[in-house]
Amino acid sequence: MADQTALKKLAGYRAAEFVEDGMVVGIGSGSTIAFVVEALGKRVAEEGLKIKGVPTSDKTRRTAAKLGIPMHNVDDVDHIDITIDGADQIDENFAAIKGGGAALLWEKIVAVNSRRNIWVVDDTKIAPHLTHYLPVEVIPYGAEQLFKRLKQKGYEPTWRLDQNGNPVRTDSANFLFDLHFDKMPDPFKLGRELTSMVGVVEHGLFLNIVDQVVVGRDDETIAVFDSHPQPLI
Amino acid sequence: MADQTALKKLAGYRAAEFVEDGMVVGIGSGSTIAFVVEALGKRVAEEGLKIKGVPTSDKTRRTAAKLGIPMHNVDDVDHIDITIDGADQIDENFAAIKGGGAALLWEKIVAVNSRRNIWVVDDTKIAPHLTHYLPVEVIPYGAEQLFKRLKQKGYEPTWRLDQNGNPVRTDSANFLFDLHFDKMPDPFKLGRELTSMVGVVEHGLFLNIVDQVVVGRDDETIAVFDSHPQPLI
Repeated sequence: MADQTALKKLAGYRAAEFVEDGMVVGIGSGSTIAFVVEALGKRVAEEGLKIKGVPTSDKTRRTAAKLGIPMHNVDDVDHIDITIDGADQIDENFAAIKGGGAALLWEKIVAVNSRRNIWVVDDTKIAPHLTHYLPVEVIPYGAEQLFKRLKQKGYEPTWRLDQNGNPVRTDSANFLFDLHFDKMPDPFKLGRELTSMVGVVEHGLFLNIVDQVVVGRDDETIAVFDSHPQPLI
Repeated sequence: MADQTALKKLAGYRAAEFVEDGMVVGIGSGSTIAFVVEALGKRVAEEGLKIKGVPTSDKTRRTAAKLGIPMHNVDDVDHIDITIDGADQIDENFAAIKGGGAALLWEKIVAVNSRRNIWVVDDTKIAPHLTHYLPVEVIPYGAEQLFKRLKQKGYEPTWRLDQNGNPVRTDSANFLFDLHFDKMPDPFKLGRELTSMVGVVEHGLFLNIVDQVVVGRDDETIAVFDSHPQPLI
């Protein structure tokens, strides 16, 4: 079995090749994306690649800036050409769950403002159906009451806590719940329901967003899938 | 024509009569609600009324606490018995627009956690159809891009600015846009569309929420309408 870290690096470096000179690049978050950032930093230093980066988290902003990638807020660019991000799980229809790293809101904001979205994952993240827990970003005021309503619906919410046992604060200073399902309902229906709940800022279902998925496989090959027309599995 | 301030006071004092001893009371925001708070403060002082207040804004929290009403966060009470709030405009089907005072998010959070909602308005706020501008609370990150998307849809957004020309920050530290329509689309459809837009936290359409509306009329009488079954106009 291939080493997961090596696989992530292989896939991350491959994904970074999609970036061309002059592009505005949305840069995601997470351990695989760390290798994309590393690869982009190298290309900036060695090839003189000229890009503008737009971060999906404050952490990404700091890491990328340190590697010499000029970083801009999503509101300081006209548009984003391409965004490279990870995913916690992707199903056979290219629906994904994101937010394990607590950055789902900014990730989604950057994604919907991008002309092209690429996700890069190792093959343990691909599944026929979504089974991962679902992160939901919520407004702190009334969060306990919202938690109760989600519980009544049978969505088994848990609070996302930091290592000191305090509620995690997102980059937008909100709280996170993680929902657990015996069997995930239809993602489109669930997404609409969650979005309509007062106090829910955003959920981790990313539907109809991705254009291409770069997968690092256990045999150390890299596969690139277009979300249309061929299926992922 | 009756003096508007006198009308607001008359209606506010009438609405405060709905509050009974032992209740948990959601307390809204705005100039009419200021008289509800005044009336409740008097009842606490003079009748020994025992209530717990839950504020819809930091300003309401401070004002009510000064008048001797014990104030609690929405998450520190088991439930809210009754909430009294104002509205910017109410149509004949009891759909309303709120948020002129920048408190729509907390107002909606308190409203959906209340067993009974009462709105108190003067009769200039009643209209056959909604024509008021529509406030929308948005996440600061990506707000400029969201503004562009709303503009492309023809919703004529404007930034809510403070007196120094800076974007207003809500109690949840978000921004506010005000949408302007030649003719307001179906409120339910519009609400769903706005809610589904990434970066929109909440909008000022309050649909299927109110139980009773207290109206101060120009002839200085007060009318109380149940949202079902009789029409408001």
